Amino acid sequence: MADRLFIFDTTLRDGEQVPGCQLNTVEKIEIAKSLETLGVDVIEAGFPVSSPGDFNSVVEISKAVTWPTICALTRAVETDIRVAADALKYAKHKRIHTGIGTSDYHIRHKFNSNREEILERAVACVKYAKSFVEDVQFYAEDAGRTDNEYLARVVEAVIKAGATVVNIPDTTGYCLPWEFGEKIKYLMENVKGVDKATIAVHCHNDLGMATANTISAIRNGARQAEVTINGIGERAGNTSLEEVVMTCRCHKDLGIETNINTTRIYGISRKVSSLMNMPVQPNKAIVGRNAFAHSSGIHQDGVLKNRESYEIMDPKDVGLDENSILLTARSGRAALKHRLSVLGIELTKEALDKAYESFLKLADHKKEITDDDIMMIAGRHHMANHRIKLDFLQVTSGVGVHAVASVGLDIAGEKFEACSSGNGPVDAAINAVKLIIRRTMVLKEFLIQAFNKGSNDIGKVHMTVEYDGGLYYGFSANTDIVAASCEAFIDAINKFIK
Amino acid sequence: MADRLFIFDTTLRDGEQVPGCQLNTVEKIEIAKSLETLGVDVIEAGFPVSSPGDFNSVVEISKAVTWPTICALTRAVETDIRVAADALKYAKHKRIHTGIGTSDYHIRHKFNSNREEILERAVACVKYAKSFVEDVQFYAEDAGRTDNEYLARVVEAVIKAGATVVNIPDTTGYCLPWEFGEKIKYLMENVKGVDKATIAVHCHNDLGMATANTISAIRNGARQAEVTINGIGERAGNTSLEEVVMTCRCHKDLGIETNINTTRIYGISRKVSSLMNMPVQPNKAIVGRNAFAHSSGIHQDGVLKNRESYEIMDPKDVGLDENSILLTARSGRAALKHRLSVLGIELTKEALDKAYESFLKLADHKKEITDDDIMMIAGRHHMANHRIKLDFLQVTSGVGVHAVASVGLDIAGEKFEACSSGNGPVDAAINAVKLIIRRTMVLKEFLIQAFNKGSNDIGKVHMTVEYDGGLYYGFSANTDIVAASCEAFIDAINKFIK
Repeated sequence: MADRLFIFDTTLRDGEQVPGCQLNTVEKIEIAKSLETLGVDVIEAGFPVSSPGDFNSVVEISKAVTWPTICALTRAVETDIRVAADALKYAKHKRIHTGIGTSDYHIRHKFNSNREEILERAVACVKYAKSFVEDVQFYAEDAGRTDNEYLARVVEAVIKAGATVVNIPDTTGYCLPWEFGEKIKYLMENVKGVDKATIAVHCHNDLGMATANTISAIRNGARQAEVTINGIGERAGNTSLEEVVMTCRCHKDLGIETNINTTRIYGISRKVSSLMNMPVQPNKAIVGRNAFAHSSGIHQDGVLKNRESYEIMDPKDVGLDENSILLTARSGRAALKHRLSVLGIELTKEALDKAYESFLKLADHKKEITDDDIMMIAGRHHMANHRIKLDFLQVTSGVGVHAVASVGLDIAGEKFEACSSGNGPVDAAINAVKLIIRRTMVLKEFLIQAFNKGSNDIGKVHMTVEYDGGLYYGFSANTDIVAASCEAFIDAINKFIK
Repeated sequence: MADRLFIFDTTLRDGEQVPGCQLNTVEKIEIAKSLETLGVDVIEAGFPVSSPGDFNSVVEISKAVTWPTICALTRAVETDIRVAADALKYAKHKRIHTGIGTSDYHIRHKFNSNREEILERAVACVKYAKSFVEDVQFYAEDAGRTDNEYLARVVEAVIKAGATVVNIPDTTGYCLPWEFGEKIKYLMENVKGVDKATIAVHCHNDLGMATANTISAIRNGARQAEVTINGIGERAGNTSLEEVVMTCRCHKDLGIETNINTTRIYGISRKVSSLMNMPVQPNKAIVGRNAFAHSSGIHQDGVLKNRESYEIMDPKDVGLDENSILLTARSGRAALKHRLSVLGIELTKEALDKAYESFLKLADHKKEITDDDIMMIAGRHHMANHRIKLDFLQVTSGVGVHAVASVGLDIAGEKFEACSSGNGPVDAAINAVKLIIRRTMVLKEFLIQAFNKGSNDIGKVHMTVEYDGGLYYGFSANTDIVAASCEAFIDAINKFIK
C-alpha cells in the first residue's frame, strides 16, 4: 500500500510575503477555500505577530475553512507563540509552526549565540507552543547547511519536547538532491523517537532543485512536503505543489499518495496567478500555457501516432480540458455558475447576478468567452461597492498627437472632473485621476497582461500604489486596456481612501 | 583539477520551435553572437531540412560566429544529413546531430520497426554523417524510457561507427534524478569504447526535474549538457543553461568547470526573453526579477547581518549589478554604447546613431532609462527600413464612449488613410489598419507587457499574425501602449508584404 504524503501549503505565508503579491483578507479566504477543495492537508495562513493584517487573516481563514489544519508561523519567541495561538482560536484543526536557525551561519551571525543555547531555545519554544496547542511543528531554519550530527540532536530534542512535525528546510536553496536525501536518511536512522513525529521538508528553488530535493527527501522518509501553488515564494520561490503531486502520481514506484484532487490544479494555479499578480511563464512545468503543447514537426507526428510517445501526463489530470465548452452570448446563468465552480470560484447569488450581467456585456463584444475572461469577470464584482467610482473616461492619443484624457469620478455620490495630458493614454488618464485625488501616491508596480489571441480580447492590469508608507494593490480587466489601467488605479485608491 | 563540462546551447533550435518564439535570421544571428560571447561550446543553430528559413539561418550563423561549434539537427534520413552538411559549409567548426528514437514506444509506434532494424539505421546515419564532417553527434531519442541494456548496445555501436558525442535525452521529462544518473552510470560502465566519445544529456522539465537530472548525469560521467537560455523549449521547456552553470559554480565539490562567463548570463537572458516573446516569471531561478530579492522581516534582518545567511550567489556573478549607473537625458552616446555592450548588444555606427536619437527622445519623457528601455530602443532600429510605415495615428476611447481610430500608412511613399471603431483603442487601431491592408490576416498571439514602475514607462507588444498559412512575428515598444500595438501589427505585416 502506498504511503501517505501530507501536503502543507504555504502560498498564503511564504508566497504572500513576496513584493507585489500581497492580498487582502477576502482574497486570502478565497484562496484558502480553493486550497481546501484541492485537498491540501495543512494551510499555513500567516505569521500573526508580523502585522495586524496577518493576524486578522489567520483568524478569518480559521473561520472559513473546515477540513485542513490551519497553521500559523512564529519565531522562537514567546510573544510570537502567544499571538499565534490567539489568532488560531477559531480553527477546527490548529498547528503552531515555531523554530530557529540551526546552521552555524545563523547561530553565529544572526543570533550571536552557540549550539547549546540554540538547542535550549528550540526545546523551550516547542514546550511553550505545546501549552497552547497539541499539534506543534518545529522548523530548523537553514537545516540544509546545518551539520547533520547537530541537526539530529536538535530534532531528537524537539520531538522529545512534543513536536508532532519537524520541518527540515533548505532555506537558501543550496542543496543538491542526493545530499538533501542523505540528510533526511541520516535523521531517520539516527534520531531516537523519529517515528513519533512526521519529518517535513521545505525547499527553495534558487538552483532549480526544489522539486528534486523534495522528492529525494520523500524517498528517504520525509512525509510532509511544504509547497506553494505555481512555486511562488521568496527569491526563486518554493517547491511547486503541482510538480511534487504530479511526480508522485506519475511515478507509482515511489509508493506515495496524496489527498490532492489533481483536476483542481489548473484552476487554482490560474486563481493564484491572477490574484497575486504573479505571471506563470509559458514553459512552467504542469501549469504553464505551453506545458502540454507540441510544436515541432517530428513531435507532432509522434503525438498523432501515439500520445504516449511524448506525453507522460494527460492534461485532463490537472484540470486542463481542451474540449471544455466555451461560453457564448447564449449561455445561461447556470452554465456560467458551473464554469466558475470548475475554476474553483464560488460566488454569492448577488455576486453571480452581477457577474452574469458583465458576462453578457462581454459576450456582446466577443464570440467566445474563455476561462480567463470568466476569472476576470468574477474578480470584478468586488469593485461594485467602491466609494470612488469611475464615472466616465475619454482619452485621445496616437502618433503625432499628444495624449489627453478627461476623467469623471463619483466619490460617495458627488461628481468630480479633471483632464490632463501624458506621454501615452494610460499616463494621461492616471494624471487626470491624480488631479482629483490630491494625495502623494507613487505607482510602484504596473503590470499589463494581454496574453491573448486577438486585439479584442480582455487585458488585465495589476498595480501597486504606495501611499503613506503602505502598499495598496489594484486590479482590473477590460477589453480596453487604457480603461482597465485607469480602473486598476482607482481600485487601489479605494483601499486607502475609505 | 576540475573536469570540463561542454555547454551545448539549443535555444535557437529546441527553443525556437516553440509557438510564438520564431525569430528572423537577423535576430538569430544576434542571439548566436551573444552565445559566443557568453562562452558556449556548441550552438545548435537549426534543423536545416525542416524549412528554407532554418537552412538559411544555419548558413548565416555559421558565417557570423567564430569560436563555438555550429551544430545542425537531422533525423536518421540521408536527405536530412546531406542538407545539414550543405547548410554548415561556412562553419569554422561544424557538427551534425543525427539520431533516432530508441525506446520501445518510439520503435513500435512511431517507426513500426524492431530493435535490430533501429540499431542498423543508427549506425548507418552516423556513418553517412561521418562522410561529410568529422564531428558527429548521435541522439537516442526517448533514451529516458529506453531499456538500459539495449541503449548500451546502441551507444557502443554508434561510437564504433564514429560518433564523437552521444546524446542521451530524457525526451518526455519523465525521469527522476537518481534513475537518470543510474542510466548514465550504466553506460559509462558497460559501453566498450565509451572513453572515445563524450556522453551528453538533454533533459526536459515536465516534472520540474531537468536541472537535477542534468547534474545527476554529470556526477555519473556525462560531460556535455544540452541547455537553453531561460529554460525555454517545447512544453515545459529544456534544462536552463543558467541553472546548470551556476550549480556547478556554487558546488565546487562536483569538480566541474565550464567555459561560461557567468556575468553575461543576465544580459542574454533579457535578450532572449525579449526577442523570443517568452516572459521570464519573477520567481525563475537565477534570472527571474525576484531571484535575488528578499522581503520578509526575518530574512531582511538576516541579510543585513550577514549576506551569506541567505544568499548562496552574488548577484554580480550573473551580471546583475544593482549599483549599475542608470542613464539619463545627460548621458552621452558613449555611455549608451557601453550600457548596450554590457547587455550584450553591439550596434553598427548607423544603428547606434538612430538608437541614440530614440534614447534622447525617451529620456525627455522619463527621468531614468532602465536596461529594459535600452533593449527596446536597440530592438527598434530594424523598423526604419520597413516598406509600410505608420504615418499617423489618432485614437479616442474611454468608458461611456465608443473607441474610434484614424490611421495613416505610408506604403512605399504613397499615403493611405482609414478610420474604424472597435471594442477598445487597440482593436479600433488594428481594424483601421486592416481597412488599408486588405488581406486575410488572423492575429494568433498578442502579448502586451508593461512590467514597470510607472504609468509613463515603456510598454512592449509582441504579436503573431497568420497570413496565407505562415506565421509572422511583430514587435514594438512605446510609452503609448496603443501606439506600440499598432506598430507591432505593422511590423508583422512588413514581414509578408515586401
